[in-house]
Amino acid sequence: MTASTSPSAPSAGLDHRDLGIGARFTVAVMADDYAGIILGALAEADGAGLEVVTDPVSTLVRGPEQRVLEYLRDVIAGAARGGRHVSASVLLSRGCPGEVTCATTPELLDRAAEVPVLAPTGVHAAAHWSLYPLDDTGRPGRAPDHLRDIYAAIDHAKELGTYVRGEHYATLLAGDLAEVLATVAAGWVLVGRGVQHVTSHAIVSIASPTEA
Amino acid sequence: MTASTSPSAPSAGLDHRDLGIGARFTVAVMADDYAGIILGALAEADGAGLEVVTDPVSTLVRGPEQRVLEYLRDVIAGAARGGRHVSASVLLSRGCPGEVTCATTPELLDRAAEVPVLAPTGVHAAAHWSLYPLDDTGRPGRAPDHLRDIYAAIDHAKELGTYVRGEHYATLLAGDLAEVLATVAAGWVLVGRGVQHVTSHAIVSIASPTEA
Repeated sequence: MTASTSPSAPSAGLDHRDLGIGARFTVAVMADDYAGIILGALAEADGAGLEVVTDPVSTLVRGPEQRVLEYLRDVIAGAARGGRHVSASVLLSRGCPGEVTCATTPELLDRAAEVPVLAPTGVHAAAHWSLYPLDDTGRPGRAPDHLRDIYAAIDHAKELGTYVRGEHYATLLAGDLAEVLATVAAGWVLVGRGVQHVTSHAIVSIASPTEA
Repeated sequence: MTASTSPSAPSAGLDHRDLGIGARFTVAVMADDYAGIILGALAEADGAGLEVVTDPVSTLVRGPEQRVLEYLRDVIAGAARGGRHVSASVLLSRGCPGEVTCATTPELLDRAAEVPVLAPTGVHAAAHWSLYPLDDTGRPGRAPDHLRDIYAAIDHAKELGTYVRGEHYATLLAGDLAEVLATVAAGWVLVGRGVQHVTSHAIVSIASPTEA
């Protein structure tokens, strides 16, 4: 279903649509009343300036990086407020405007955004995080090297204090939900300064009964 | 927590550990009794020959492609049998043995597996699917082109009949859960014949009340 659609204000220059910036996310609440909890969290989150479309599999959010991340934080934290176990899957994507086509221009890289800054939620979260720099050609003086870029993002996560350890296929992060999401977003934005098409995935777990 | 660990039998040649083949997945059941449902599905699934480690965020499965996919199918289908709304996040990875290091050798590509074949489950599923060929250097006669590889996988999904449409940041698939998972696995394995490090993500939705 389409829950709401509120396109962002037009911009004089390149905006998030030209840059292909946005997210897909799915919030799962392990409770019989999951629908009421999720719809309540969506209704309370501020979607101003964002395009938000919910369908049976996930919710699409398009807008500037800072606003997209604030929205993800608010919906996931809102769903977790009642103390139920919540699992959220988050996909951040940049650099492919037009769904599956990527128009590479230097302007896209030069317009890479500031790293989002998120106020804390008071909700503790753990996450398995993956980052994908999708660079076919590189730029002068910068050959493609996806592991170099991933290592740099992991080093940044260590500086932020959310890094727990590397595991098979993912990096384990933990901290306030806002810190975890900000870490995922920071890697995505920082790699986006050198690589046009970058995606990042995180599975976020809150209030798992198996977490001591 | 570590639910169970049963390393696969040793192999004379390169095995899934040398090839860095495996999955992480998280099954969310939207019910108060989610823990009993998920633990029951895990207990009933055949983990023979697989390394399975469950922690608070996700479950790691390492083994041959066919067996890993059978296990994912069985656990997710098992969790859905009671008719509750289930959301499952699946990450397939190949080509990076040793967690975050990738040792590239021609043998790894030449040993790419057959496409997994999965018997149907009778459980209908929809999924948002993403595929990431992570090729820095290419091979003689084959330059890196991640969109070329993604398009080929999408064409294959159309042949399999699970393709619904392209959407922002993901491709929508639908069909029997086994068909959907087989489509995701097929793209991953087929791209893995030309690109060493390939990952694929899917968010699978079963019995969503918003799906007409």
